[in-house]
Amino acid sequence: MAQWLERIQEPRDIRGLALDDLRQIAEEIRETMLRVTAVNGGHLASSMGAVELILALHYVYDTPRDRLVFDVGHQAYAHKLLTGRYDRFHTIRREGGLSGFLKRSESPYDTFGAGHASTSISAAAGMAIARDQRGEDYKVVCITGDGAMSGGICYEALNHAGMLETDLLVILNDNEMSISRNVGGLARTFNRIVTTHFYNEKRHDIMELIRRLPAGERFLRMTNRIEESVKGLILPGLFFEELGFRYLGPVDGHDLEGMIEILRKIRTFRGPILLHTITRKGKGRPYAEANPILWHSPPRNFDADSGEAPVVQPGPPSYTNLFVDSLKREARRDPRIVAITAAMLEGTGLVQFEEEFPERTFDVGIAEEHGVICAAGMACDGLRPFVCIYSTFLQRAFDPIIHDVCIQNLPVAFALDRGGLVGDDGPTHHGVFDLSYLRMVPNMVVMAPMDGEELRHMTHTAALYEAGPIALRFPRGSAEGDISFDAPVQQLPLGKGVWLHDEPDGAPVCLVGIGLMAAHARKAADLLAARGIRAGVINARFVKPLDRELLTDAARRYDCLVTIEDNVLAGGFGSAVMELLAADGVDVRVLTLGIPDRFIEHAKPDSLHRQLGLDPAGIAARVEAFLAARPRVQELAIERRAEFGGR
Amino acid sequence: MAQWLERIQEPRDIRGLALDDLRQIAEEIRETMLRVTAVNGGHLASSMGAVELILALHYVYDTPRDRLVFDVGHQAYAHKLLTGRYDRFHTIRREGGLSGFLKRSESPYDTFGAGHASTSISAAAGMAIARDQRGEDYKVVCITGDGAMSGGICYEALNHAGMLETDLLVILNDNEMSISRNVGGLARTFNRIVTTHFYNEKRHDIMELIRRLPAGERFLRMTNRIEESVKGLILPGLFFEELGFRYLGPVDGHDLEGMIEILRKIRTFRGPILLHTITRKGKGRPYAEANPILWHSPPRNFDADSGEAPVVQPGPPSYTNLFVDSLKREARRDPRIVAITAAMLEGTGLVQFEEEFPERTFDVGIAEEHGVICAAGMACDGLRPFVCIYSTFLQRAFDPIIHDVCIQNLPVAFALDRGGLVGDDGPTHHGVFDLSYLRMVPNMVVMAPMDGEELRHMTHTAALYEAGPIALRFPRGSAEGDISFDAPVQQLPLGKGVWLHDEPDGAPVCLVGIGLMAAHARKAADLLAARGIRAGVINARFVKPLDRELLTDAARRYDCLVTIEDNVLAGGFGSAVMELLAADGVDVRVLTLGIPDRFIEHAKPDSLHRQLGLDPAGIAARVEAFLAARPRVQELAIERRAEFGGR
Repeated sequence: MAQWLERIQEPRDIRGLALDDLRQIAEEIRETMLRVTAVNGGHLASSMGAVELILALHYVYDTPRDRLVFDVGHQAYAHKLLTGRYDRFHTIRREGGLSGFLKRSESPYDTFGAGHASTSISAAAGMAIARDQRGEDYKVVCITGDGAMSGGICYEALNHAGMLETDLLVILNDNEMSISRNVGGLARTFNRIVTTHFYNEKRHDIMELIRRLPAGERFLRMTNRIEESVKGLILPGLFFEELGFRYLGPVDGHDLEGMIEILRKIRTFRGPILLHTITRKGKGRPYAEANPILWHSPPRNFDADSGEAPVVQPGPPSYTNLFVDSLKREARRDPRIVAITAAMLEGTGLVQFEEEFPERTFDVGIAEEHGVICAAGMACDGLRPFVCIYSTFLQRAFDPIIHDVCIQNLPVAFALDRGGLVGDDGPTHHGVFDLSYLRMVPNMVVMAPMDGEELRHMTHTAALYEAGPIALRFPRGSAEGDISFDAPVQQLPLGKGVWLHDEPDGAPVCLVGIGLMAAHARKAADLLAARGIRAGVINARFVKPLDRELLTDAARRYDCLVTIEDNVLAGGFGSAVMELLAADGVDVRVLTLGIPDRFIEHAKPDSLHRQLGLDPAGIAARVEAFLAARPRVQELAIERRAEFGGR
Repeated sequence: MAQWLERIQEPRDIRGLALDDLRQIAEEIRETMLRVTAVNGGHLASSMGAVELILALHYVYDTPRDRLVFDVGHQAYAHKLLTGRYDRFHTIRREGGLSGFLKRSESPYDTFGAGHASTSISAAAGMAIARDQRGEDYKVVCITGDGAMSGGICYEALNHAGMLETDLLVILNDNEMSISRNVGGLARTFNRIVTTHFYNEKRHDIMELIRRLPAGERFLRMTNRIEESVKGLILPGLFFEELGFRYLGPVDGHDLEGMIEILRKIRTFRGPILLHTITRKGKGRPYAEANPILWHSPPRNFDADSGEAPVVQPGPPSYTNLFVDSLKREARRDPRIVAITAAMLEGTGLVQFEEEFPERTFDVGIAEEHGVICAAGMACDGLRPFVCIYSTFLQRAFDPIIHDVCIQNLPVAFALDRGGLVGDDGPTHHGVFDLSYLRMVPNMVVMAPMDGEELRHMTHTAALYEAGPIALRFPRGSAEGDISFDAPVQQLPLGKGVWLHDEPDGAPVCLVGIGLMAAHARKAADLLAARGIRAGVINARFVKPLDRELLTDAARRYDCLVTIEDNVLAGGFGSAVMELLAADGVDVRVLTLGIPDRFIEHAKPDSLHRQLGLDPAGIAARVEAFLAARPRVQELAIERRAEFGGR
């Protein structure tokens, strides 16, 4: 089927080909990505929209000597297929297989990895500077979606690169959407152009009209900037020109011949250039073009010909749906509650909230910092904002969380979806730093639910908490536990954990889990019990404030504590427990289980939990080993005390 | 002297006054801020430039019902003087006194506090949204410097607010500089306007010229956007208009009458408006106008009339100067080394680096995220970038540190100046989270020097380290220790600490300090020795990787360890030590000393160290108390073990 792709080992192999052959390759690329994504899942619609653009780039530019820098890489599947990865493409997003994003360690053609948006212009500017410093002359090209353009980093990068006047081509690949519809004044400007083709039609008309005026020619000569000005009437180019870029476009990004022609010209130009291309998300399959939001990352096992998805048996509700349903209940009760997201209406489920509360839903674009500071402003003037951002993306707003929310102790609630290990998206997307980066900030309350029911209680608790900032972190996927959307919710006591199982007379070990890991801890305790090892189990519920009374009691009655979290061990929940016990002078052995100090690759969360010993069986095994080793350690400690005990 | 100011209790008191009276008040404000800043230090030049603007705002707007939101507050001293704080103004930046920035807890007129730039438009947008939600009709005005405009958050906020179409006035207070000279393509556009007054002169001319053309009137009617277009010829307004703002200006921000007139008009307008005002940093004193960079935050004890500063006796070199001197040496040796800062050439000392290496110095503007990603791009293509950003501002780049640098394990060096407690700037500026937020990220190496000499070694070590990212964190102010700029430097072994004092047979306690606190620990040990308590002292040097061998040895030979850091305890250095010991099954009591879980107000670092028990005497006293309490705890532990020891 993929006769051409099978023969393409590197981009050089396409450079001698005729246009018709390239068009055939484009079709093979689309077929291949459809076939594979139907099985593996993945970011389909963006990649389908960028096929001709990527073909033209590899055709014209001398990659990998010339650098292509992709933003996020949602659109880069064609790039993978043209750079020696066709054979392995069926492994994309599978454990041990190709990454769903670009990755430097995967290919020399992947010059810069990215899973978060808006980074490519910055990285490309850095490469262009490095090239100039080293006296090289290769070209640097970055490909940025219009959605990414709503992120402030792009603006910072354009502003800097525009000043440098270095050779740099920024391709604004404009498909009128990021993942959901774009927001922002600038997006509206883009949309106007694209939808009306105002520029291409009118620019010429207006120039002609002026020329036909009695003194038109004189008027046009009046200033050499007049054409710029007329352009300014009708296109957003001036925005980029103000930042120091030469603006070209918009051009049809699906016109292979036109793209090759303009790129060949641009390749000879100097200085910072922005080329505005118009493409269509889902291009090549009418069903995907018709619903690019659904087809951004479609459900698996669809039919690649018809676009029909299999009927999915309704499973347990997702954490996301439970959270949004709960938030809607709170919003009905409290008119001050509003919801904020950063270009993730669908992912965070807020699209459901928006249906009921369109005036109380704010999508700020890929602008996490602004979103959090804006929420702080809302909280100053009487609203109760819920900031709904994935754990990994909220890293972008670490400073606003400290500087704008927590220093001022404002009642902003944070709902961090995709906490813990997220699976196929891999290291750029795992939400494994949040417990650490949130708990270190004074005034912040940090909760994590053990299951879907507790998520509902915590949403309610967050909505009722008026004293300052509060964060709620929950995992991706289906919720644990037996859940009813209609069961009554409780306000949880602040900073209080609960015993899931207590051995009143103490036992060798007490497992202290947070979030999903509290559920795993309970199962691990059952496994240990089956092996004759009695273990208490605590669901901590709160990372901050910690339940001092509960933990001290556990430390007093149990020989040792084992903390369990799906967060990095460095500075995480286990550390917090040790800090508390040390501060109180409570002397107890603690074993901390969590994410070790390395980045975790992509794989299903269950598989990753198994690999890391964070599934119930792994936890049980590690606790057993720990207890087996313990007596020896204790003896050593007693020896040591005897030796130096006099002082 | 300040006859008017003494009588002004609130802005209402100026609203009936005549223009001449207002001008008199402006002069009194300048005199007062000069008099106080000459003693207390502070952000002078920006505040002098914004006097008329702030007077006009409080004159026209119904504050505090109408909201004024300042960016950073470098410029807001006049605002403090007009809002009931004249009496206490002499306490500004002094312990227990007024904050140098805005602060919600200080005054109802301080609607939003800020010490980091570029936040005001976001916060104001949030307030405008809250107003609309609650059906109120007050006005929201934010005042943003042109420097702050280089920050991506401003762009995110303009883009969002432009779409909302809510009532919001953004005043771009343009003085052609942030703290140092502005950078970026947009800044160049601003400067062009300001320096040539191109707009005010030419706009009218061009419109008239067109009108006089035979068909000029028809031409002007041709499209209702033509005037916009002619504006686009010559002013940056289109940039803002593309983002959905109505652009007005530029106007002279020192023309009180004109400012009052235009603000009165604007107050009746609807929707998002950007007013571009031109002011002069240091306005009102020729010496300050002539050197606004120096007078941004002038040395104390200057003569307010002449601007002459006292001759300062040369003291010990600052950490900043030692670092930059060392970096220059490394750059002479290694042509791949470049330096990056974010609008802080002076503060980071890189202005000295730039003198010698202008082509290898990159000031990216107030754009920490871009700066770090750009450095990552540089590192991809063979440079060795040093990112020089204050600890508190690097919080803005937390995600790029994880996502762009550490996941890709790129050799980017971070030099964090102003680590620890910075003093007068207070809670927004203390660099007390860095050890926690850096050490949690895989692949990152984290160092902190005990004194100036060690800083030189660490700079050398960072420059030679090629394996991945490395961070170097040092305090504000004069360096500890006896320093020569010419002494030879050593490459420090990675992850190795050193004994400053060892008791070979062990002792009751071993102090383990990091950075400045290692120096304090040594002095504390001397104090303890004078009281008959023997204590070992370790200078850890590295927060990550920790010196496993050294710490395990100390834990084996000493009864207990005391970690000391000027970083938050939550997830900090002490936590790292406990994590290591717990992971290795080493059973030893640990006391962790550091910054507690609350925001620390402004005061001299020495005073803050005293208050927090982190000065040598405080450390000694806390160690002594800990040792005195310890036996009881140990007995309890032994009891507990005896009680439950069977299992």
